[in-house]
Amino acid sequence: MDRIYLDNAATTPIAPEVIDAMVESLTYSYGNPSSTHSFGQEVREKVELVRRNIASKLHVKPGEIVFTSCGTESNNLAIRGSVEHLGVKRIITSPLEHKCVEECTRAMKKIHGVELVYIKPDSLGNISSESLREALAESREKTLVSIMHANNEIGNLIDLKEFALICKEYDAYFHTDTVQTIGHLDLNFEEIPVDFASCSAHKFHGPKGIGFAFIRKNLGLKSIICGGPQERNLRAGTENVSGIVGLGKAFDLAYQDLDSTKEFIKEIKKYCIESLQVEFPDIQFNGESGNMDKSLYTVLSVLLPFYDPMIGFKLDMKGIAISQGSACSSGAASMSGVMMRIIPEHLVGKSTPLRVSFSSMTRKEDIDKFIACLVAIKNELKLNNFQLNN
Amino acid sequence: MDRIYLDNAATTPIAPEVIDAMVESLTYSYGNPSSTHSFGQEVREKVELVRRNIASKLHVKPGEIVFTSCGTESNNLAIRGSVEHLGVKRIITSPLEHKCVEECTRAMKKIHGVELVYIKPDSLGNISSESLREALAESREKTLVSIMHANNEIGNLIDLKEFALICKEYDAYFHTDTVQTIGHLDLNFEEIPVDFASCSAHKFHGPKGIGFAFIRKNLGLKSIICGGPQERNLRAGTENVSGIVGLGKAFDLAYQDLDSTKEFIKEIKKYCIESLQVEFPDIQFNGESGNMDKSLYTVLSVLLPFYDPMIGFKLDMKGIAISQGSACSSGAASMSGVMMRIIPEHLVGKSTPLRVSFSSMTRKEDIDKFIACLVAIKNELKLNNFQLNN
Repeated sequence: MDRIYLDNAATTPIAPEVIDAMVESLTYSYGNPSSTHSFGQEVREKVELVRRNIASKLHVKPGEIVFTSCGTESNNLAIRGSVEHLGVKRIITSPLEHKCVEECTRAMKKIHGVELVYIKPDSLGNISSESLREALAESREKTLVSIMHANNEIGNLIDLKEFALICKEYDAYFHTDTVQTIGHLDLNFEEIPVDFASCSAHKFHGPKGIGFAFIRKNLGLKSIICGGPQERNLRAGTENVSGIVGLGKAFDLAYQDLDSTKEFIKEIKKYCIESLQVEFPDIQFNGESGNMDKSLYTVLSVLLPFYDPMIGFKLDMKGIAISQGSACSSGAASMSGVMMRIIPEHLVGKSTPLRVSFSSMTRKEDIDKFIACLVAIKNELKLNNFQLNN
Repeated sequence: MDRIYLDNAATTPIAPEVIDAMVESLTYSYGNPSSTHSFGQEVREKVELVRRNIASKLHVKPGEIVFTSCGTESNNLAIRGSVEHLGVKRIITSPLEHKCVEECTRAMKKIHGVELVYIKPDSLGNISSESLREALAESREKTLVSIMHANNEIGNLIDLKEFALICKEYDAYFHTDTVQTIGHLDLNFEEIPVDFASCSAHKFHGPKGIGFAFIRKNLGLKSIICGGPQERNLRAGTENVSGIVGLGKAFDLAYQDLDSTKEFIKEIKKYCIESLQVEFPDIQFNGESGNMDKSLYTVLSVLLPFYDPMIGFKLDMKGIAISQGSACSSGAASMSGVMMRIIPEHLVGKSTPLRVSFSSMTRKEDIDKFIACLVAIKNELKLNNFQLNN
């Protein structure tokens, strides 16, 4: 059975060029970049080249890019780091953040007694700049704001620059989880004054186990994983060299043809929306997901107009890989926290949420097959209900 | 120029079989192991297979193996985790620990006010079980003992079982940095009651960026990197799948022929000791390093009977990669903290420390060339001194 992968917000297939670069690194660049001899220094150069390329693209200094093991670690470094080293006593966040921000901020409350303030999103999952202002104005305690750039389940985007400028105005640190947007959107951190951002290579055809944190220079942040002086004292431990090389290649590829890739995927998303509307006239799209201008082009959060709690399993049986929420929250049969807040109460038990997420490797034929499977599942469901009732 | 690599305690060349396994994983196993669909579940199976194999070899439960990004992170997880979640108020450690244990314990003092107790090693760098007992008997506060299994610079080994049993007796947690020994020694954690241990794949021909922590079950430890429920809530973040597969292969290879590999490398170390003694009759070996029974067979810490602070650089110019201390502490021109404690005061400025470290890929010819280079450097030095004085 030919399988179709429509879960690119969870992770993406790795680009062949990325694998080639990693093999080259694994085979020939085995020195420890902290070693002063030539085996080490050759590897050090390769690591620093990747750092410089990433920094240049994001309009930041190389020293502001800190390689980590993943997006989760990057977010933890910013949040925990600013509590433990920058005197943050208060965190303003939202109830729609990724599990790692949710859990890390909770841990900071439990371990360090930090105050947590949640901004209430509107019914579409949007956080207004006014509510951010209000929350910031409420206290003069040193504050960190942590609000994600694009929601990983419903794709809603915030105006990063506006939010960053508001935080500046109130002298608060601003951390944004950019795991779903770095590699997918052009970001210029010279113009957008965020203090901390995060990246995970496997969200844009790079390997798992490597990412980076953007940590604005001279803030005084220190590492949460302590040890050697690697990453300018911001992340101890021997560097994941082949991972960094893979990240570097994936990052280059992502930004090389960003505009055309973006157009290509937008076309797929639009096609998916329209095709779904033809087959399911009552379909809804969660959050801003159906609005091409207000949501990330790689994510479409669907609310099917029929109820089937087994739909993920049934689609999988038909060869379609799709998610109902985020991968990090999956395993549970119940709806994700984000979905529970977003789906109107009267539709719970009458509709089914699905996250369809695209990459440059997605084809329109994949969408056709996916929708054909949905139709088949709906028809089987009708037949079962008919037999049950007769 | 043919280069010779004698810095295997810093990192090792990656085995071709490991690279092959990683390429297979990168190419075909790109699903997110947290995803419930088949792409994810196939990868989950592979990750769990590696975990089971490692657990079985160490005589522990699969749930006690927690994949992390490196040895440093594993050590941080045990130390920080036991302070933040197990009520540890006091840490007994030694001044000869790896930088990551040294810095993490210091951070725990600074952030959480933990008391740090340092056991004084003897002149050879050994820590006696009596001094451990004394330190434990001094206080009834909840205590963590953190003492490394084999010293990464001088190779001294502790009697892990004896130390673990003493800690049990005093109801203290016992963490041991086993980064230099897992993959090189047989360890049975069913018989040796340590609570926490650490592993880094790149110390035994695996990739950088992956390791694991052994975390004894039911202690109640929680993650220090918070987020999704990965690694049974002990380490959030999407798993480094290809790294785990590479670690698994390297681990299998390491233990497959452990006895013969050990004999082979011991023979190399013995040959190195004897050849050095022939060329430099006044040579000394630091710590227990020259004692085949009391030190790790992969590490030889040499004290050359002449002073040359540029020796690392000169050897590198001649194609020999070697370290003067640990890679994590290198970059500094000064001696490492361990060396400063171990080298007798009257020999400072008259002798030169070098760490030679071996792997199964080291050959006797490599040792011959290395020693020939040392002789050449010593002769050049003599000539320079002669010219300087005449």
